[in-house]
Amino acid sequence: MTQKIKVGILGASGYTGAEAMRLLLRHPHVEITLLTADRKAGQSVEEVYPHLGGYGLPDMVSVDDADWSSVDVVFCGLPHGTTQEIIATLPEDVKVVDMSADFRLRDPETYAEWYGHTHQALELQKSAVYGLTELYRDDVKSARLVACPGCYPTATLIALLPLVRAGLVDPLDLIIDAKSGITGAGRGLKQNTLFSEAGEGMGPYSVSKHRHAPEIEQEVAAFAGLEASNVRVNFIPHLVPMSRGELVTCHLKLTEGKTAADIRTEFEATFKDEPFVRVLSEGQVPQTQMVRGSNNCVVNVFEDRIPGRVIVIAAIDNLVKGSSGQAIQNMNLMFGFDETEGLEQVALFP
Amino acid sequence: MTQKIKVGILGASGYTGAEAMRLLLRHPHVEITLLTADRKAGQSVEEVYPHLGGYGLPDMVSVDDADWSSVDVVFCGLPHGTTQEIIATLPEDVKVVDMSADFRLRDPETYAEWYGHTHQALELQKSAVYGLTELYRDDVKSARLVACPGCYPTATLIALLPLVRAGLVDPLDLIIDAKSGITGAGRGLKQNTLFSEAGEGMGPYSVSKHRHAPEIEQEVAAFAGLEASNVRVNFIPHLVPMSRGELVTCHLKLTEGKTAADIRTEFEATFKDEPFVRVLSEGQVPQTQMVRGSNNCVVNVFEDRIPGRVIVIAAIDNLVKGSSGQAIQNMNLMFGFDETEGLEQVALFP
Amino acid sequence: MTQKIKVGILGASGYTGAEAMRLLLRHPHVEITLLTADRKAGQSVEEVYPHLGGYGLPDMVSVDDADWSSVDVVFCGLPHGTTQEIIATLPEDVKVVDMSADFRLRDPETYAEWYGHTHQALELQKSAVYGLTELYRDDVKSARLVACPGCYPTATLIALLPLVRAGLVDPLDLIIDAKSGITGAGRGLKQNTLFSEAGEGMGPYSVSKHRHAPEIEQEVAAFAGLEASNVRVNFIPHLVPMSRGELVTCHLKLTEGKTAADIRTEFEATFKDEPFVRVLSEGQVPQTQMVRGSNNCVVNVFEDRIPGRVIVIAAIDNLVKGSSGQAIQNMNLMFGFDETEGLEQVALFP
Amino acid sequence: MTQKIKVGILGASGYTGAEAMRLLLRHPHVEITLLTADRKAGQSVEEVYPHLGGYGLPDMVSVDDADWSSVDVVFCGLPHGTTQEIIATLPEDVKVVDMSADFRLRDPETYAEWYGHTHQALELQKSAVYGLTELYRDDVKSARLVACPGCYPTATLIALLPLVRAGLVDPLDLIIDAKSGITGAGRGLKQNTLFSEAGEGMGPYSVSKHRHAPEIEQEVAAFAGLEASNVRVNFIPHLVPMSRGELVTCHLKLTEGKTAADIRTEFEATFKDEPFVRVLSEGQVPQTQMVRGSNNCVVNVFEDRIPGRVIVIAAIDNLVKGSSGQAIQNMNLMFGFDETEGLEQVALFP
Repeated sequence: MTQKIKVGILGASGYTGAEAMRLLLRHPHVEITLLTADRKAGQSVEEVYPHLGGYGLPDMVSVDDADWSSVDVVFCGLPHGTTQEIIATLPEDVKVVDMSADFRLRDPETYAEWYGHTHQALELQKSAVYGLTELYRDDVKSARLVACPGCYPTATLIALLPLVRAGLVDPLDLIIDAKSGITGAGRGLKQNTLFSEAGEGMGPYSVSKHRHAPEIEQEVAAFAGLEASNVRVNFIPHLVPMSRGELVTCHLKLTEGKTAADIRTEFEATFKDEPFVRVLSEGQVPQTQMVRGSNNCVVNVFEDRIPGRVIVIAAIDNLVKGSSGQAIQNMNLMFGFDETEGLEQVALFP
Repeated sequence: MTQKIKVGILGASGYTGAEAMRLLLRHPHVEITLLTADRKAGQSVEEVYPHLGGYGLPDMVSVDDADWSSVDVVFCGLPHGTTQEIIATLPEDVKVVDMSADFRLRDPETYAEWYGHTHQALELQKSAVYGLTELYRDDVKSARLVACPGCYPTATLIALLPLVRAGLVDPLDLIIDAKSGITGAGRGLKQNTLFSEAGEGMGPYSVSKHRHAPEIEQEVAAFAGLEASNVRVNFIPHLVPMSRGELVTCHLKLTEGKTAADIRTEFEATFKDEPFVRVLSEGQVPQTQMVRGSNNCVVNVFEDRIPGRVIVIAAIDNLVKGSSGQAIQNMNLMFGFDETEGLEQVALFP
Repeated sequence: MTQKIKVGILGASGYTGAEAMRLLLRHPHVEITLLTADRKAGQSVEEVYPHLGGYGLPDMVSVDDADWSSVDVVFCGLPHGTTQEIIATLPEDVKVVDMSADFRLRDPETYAEWYGHTHQALELQKSAVYGLTELYRDDVKSARLVACPGCYPTATLIALLPLVRAGLVDPLDLIIDAKSGITGAGRGLKQNTLFSEAGEGMGPYSVSKHRHAPEIEQEVAAFAGLEASNVRVNFIPHLVPMSRGELVTCHLKLTEGKTAADIRTEFEATFKDEPFVRVLSEGQVPQTQMVRGSNNCVVNVFEDRIPGRVIVIAAIDNLVKGSSGQAIQNMNLMFGFDETEGLEQVALFP
Repeated sequence: MTQKIKVGILGASGYTGAEAMRLLLRHPHVEITLLTADRKAGQSVEEVYPHLGGYGLPDMVSVDDADWSSVDVVFCGLPHGTTQEIIATLPEDVKVVDMSADFRLRDPETYAEWYGHTHQALELQKSAVYGLTELYRDDVKSARLVACPGCYPTATLIALLPLVRAGLVDPLDLIIDAKSGITGAGRGLKQNTLFSEAGEGMGPYSVSKHRHAPEIEQEVAAFAGLEASNVRVNFIPHLVPMSRGELVTCHLKLTEGKTAADIRTEFEATFKDEPFVRVLSEGQVPQTQMVRGSNNCVVNVFEDRIPGRVIVIAAIDNLVKGSSGQAIQNMNLMFGFDETEGLEQVALFP
């Protein structure tokens, strides 16, 4: 076989890091040579993630002790805000697949407004490609730094951008009611993600002020040919008692004269050759159970009872297509591998 | 004390029947004297519901073998469509609290359209009172037959009707994104409610065609002073992996000049003396965990990012306030008891 | 009515504290006048436990700021080790129902061995009554300080002590395979109790070294007339993905000539007048679903396939009978109330 | 590459059938050419299992309509009792990997006693190999018919047989306390496996009379050199609210003079080259979270508090190593493939 590329995972003790390990362990052209995790530095993978024990992975090291000469590409699963400083120090020839939010927003002012501080690597930001693979594939191929979308924007934009681009729906009347499994809140210790608090119940959070709203607005505006500051979406996420899975229910207003059938036609045309997006049969509802553990996205459209409106629904696994899986999909493009390498896992059900 | 009233529960083997038993066992003015369950006839309560064993409840009998002289009031938890025929045969002096859908829709044509058959007890239908207690309290007091609302309409209408009545929101632009625990699907055996199918995942169902949509439209129209046939709501329910709980996220358009603050003021005025509805503090999100096992409803309002719109959210326990609890609340009114008798249970958390 | 007693809850921000509030809010002879929680001092109950908002409970205060003159009795839900120092400073006329582990072990050396430090209130320890209500009822009635058993010992000892006392099983061959819901691990932030870690999987913990083992041994020895140091039990707990509930599966060796039927007879004789212990019908298996949210314990016995052995199984709700419920049961005895006051809640199922 | 073998799955609509599909879709030397499911005959895979849609699998057919010439091997996931009749009619050159219980018990009388009817294919029974791969590897290689063990026996016997064979534990004092996820009960519609009944609670079932007991006894006897009729184990399974996963907690009596360290040494020697069995580090507890979705088994040993006793714990995914995964492992041996082909999936966590 060809030589394997060497991969580092920064922030390997978080869920996106663990998921990257799980998937990359099966990738035929990859060797994991570096794992950083500041608070777990010195620990073995088995200690941090028992399910990943026995695979010969390297021990965790502090990011300060990382040997960058040992890697061709890094996946960044670091907390938002810390990524930009670290990436700025990396050797030029190390490619970067960023799973944090640091390089998603193109406008520095919007970034500062939503993340509470000035961006620390504006030059890098300019060169970053937004890694929503299905819609930015060519840009990703030649990028050094790919900013993978947030989990909610991934599911939302796969469904909405083709419709906005084709002028089928009103980009100024987008209502996105989103639901996520608890891993979306990360591995950090929080009272509201304890089993006994998050289980057997549900509710919304960050109503009207979730950081994924401006990210969605940025892309909708770009595909609609509008100023981002003119696009405002209703985006409300809910936390649902399941570990993985994300479902977005989009309540949309059709452009005058357009129908649900037009949307179905557009979906089928857009996604017919996509390996990871499946338009479901008419009437079949997307469920997160269809995609758990896989890089797949399922999508469908339904007529609303209110004339002139439709409901578009998409489901993904937030840790795979919504994070580490899409990151690997991007890495495959950046290194000229088959886009599906390491990602052919079938969904786990039941 | 005063003499206890004698209560029968028809369809006692279903979840609403069990929940009525659980609550009525603690009601100081009630004695359960009749339990019917056709397929479980002859079985003890302990066999059908082990958690209700040991309380001296009567055995299940077939509805054909019921002794109506033994009851002052019946709770009907029968499958939709069968209730109306049975109720039509009851002695006049037996009051009826119906938890099925049979008497909720006032218009016979709408009933026939959504339930697939002509209504069999149109005379009774005319005398039925819609049992959304907070908004029909006076009618309930004097009713013989109360049609308790569906679980989704309960949560939805408690939040929406005061706003529609006060002219604060547009009754023709109502988008209701609802989420329910699995008990909402009943105790019948269905593949999609098996633990391994419904667990660890979620999705929508009955998109744009759930039977609770016309019920919501009927009431919105009534409070808005419109024809029901002119009101159409977007109502989409989702099944969430929890046993109990229901959350409705309502995306609403404000009437010109109105604000989220106006809605809060209206909520506080409407509910300030209600024993079971609590307007949460500003910014606090309703969660089903707050009301599990109780007859409470929590509600709040949030500004939308889209100017001129708000998000109103309400949460209830679908088996209590959404069914058997509200039924008992209505019974209390019908018999002149304190409205809260038997319903003071505090929510079970964690 | 008679005057209400005034109750304080120390450590009110933990799960046992919340559960005590939930139950005491319905107790007719009790008024909650003091809530302490050091890290939440100054916060309202609604902030700490939204489901308990709206009931007019006092705000949380630091234990240092507690006004002891305002209480007749305190429930202690403090972390193990801190209780003994605080209780030692209380006025003599304040009764104490301790839900921590501080006063359960009678032998100071055993305490020091298992809890890692010398006991700080040995005099109080001597006067403490072990609050396994069904087996120490008379002692509890006259106690000032009651040490409520741990959740595992409660379920285990209700089932085993009558058998040991009657000489039906071998006290030196006790194998107790226990399973608990996640609330048993408390509200503290731990990685292994996050929803995504504890959900959809299970495993044992503290194998052969759980602190409830010596507590079980102490009581078995006492009822068998043996030295505690001579009794060793196999006790292995497992963490199961549910919030509440505890099940103990006891693998026992019958005394020569005794049978499963003898055990059933003993159970029925022992528990026939107990309000909270129910011996199930022959062949019916105990499940935690039967007791969720209630103070009930269900128990049954089964023949083993290995001749001369039986399996005894008991289930409780770890937060009610296993903690706050039993604590209230003891308080009722200490103040001469009906033993079941505030505890008549029927189990919540489904 | 080499030509692919053609695989049929009988009973493809059940969970073991679905899991076989999920895994075989990734197997490089396999093509799925036949799927039978009597009640779902005529339906597409997408209709029966939406998560398997889009992979070009054949539609379901009735077993009567199966074209046996199209397959080299069949996986049988049929209900117990029906497999034997169907297999008896298959062409001689079709190999059989049976995941049902039909050929597990070697003794016809034991079979009849536990399964309620005389075995219908006794000649085939004689040629069947018990497919516990790690302990019957050589026999499996040359078998035409492999009877894969039950899920509980798989986890139990991997842990116990090496110890019994080495004379380290008493084969007449085996207490096996087992816990399984709900998929273990299959996809059939049963009230006790509904989400709202099985969730948020747990309990034992089939106490002392589960059909996996005689299967365990058969193998323990074989490895101990005893008559099966002389070996009796205590085997008690519990149903736990998780979809997948199985944990067995074995309470064992050491042979005089042996220690927990001897058992660890034996485990390490036995499993050091096994691709799917991992002996955990000293003190690390097996959890089903470590193996979910994978063919792995994790095992460990702990000292008991009762002198002379140990606790051995093993965890598997009941649908993979406990059923379809082990079946594929056996198929690999029967066809000379690498034993791990199609089974290298890393466990899915969180």
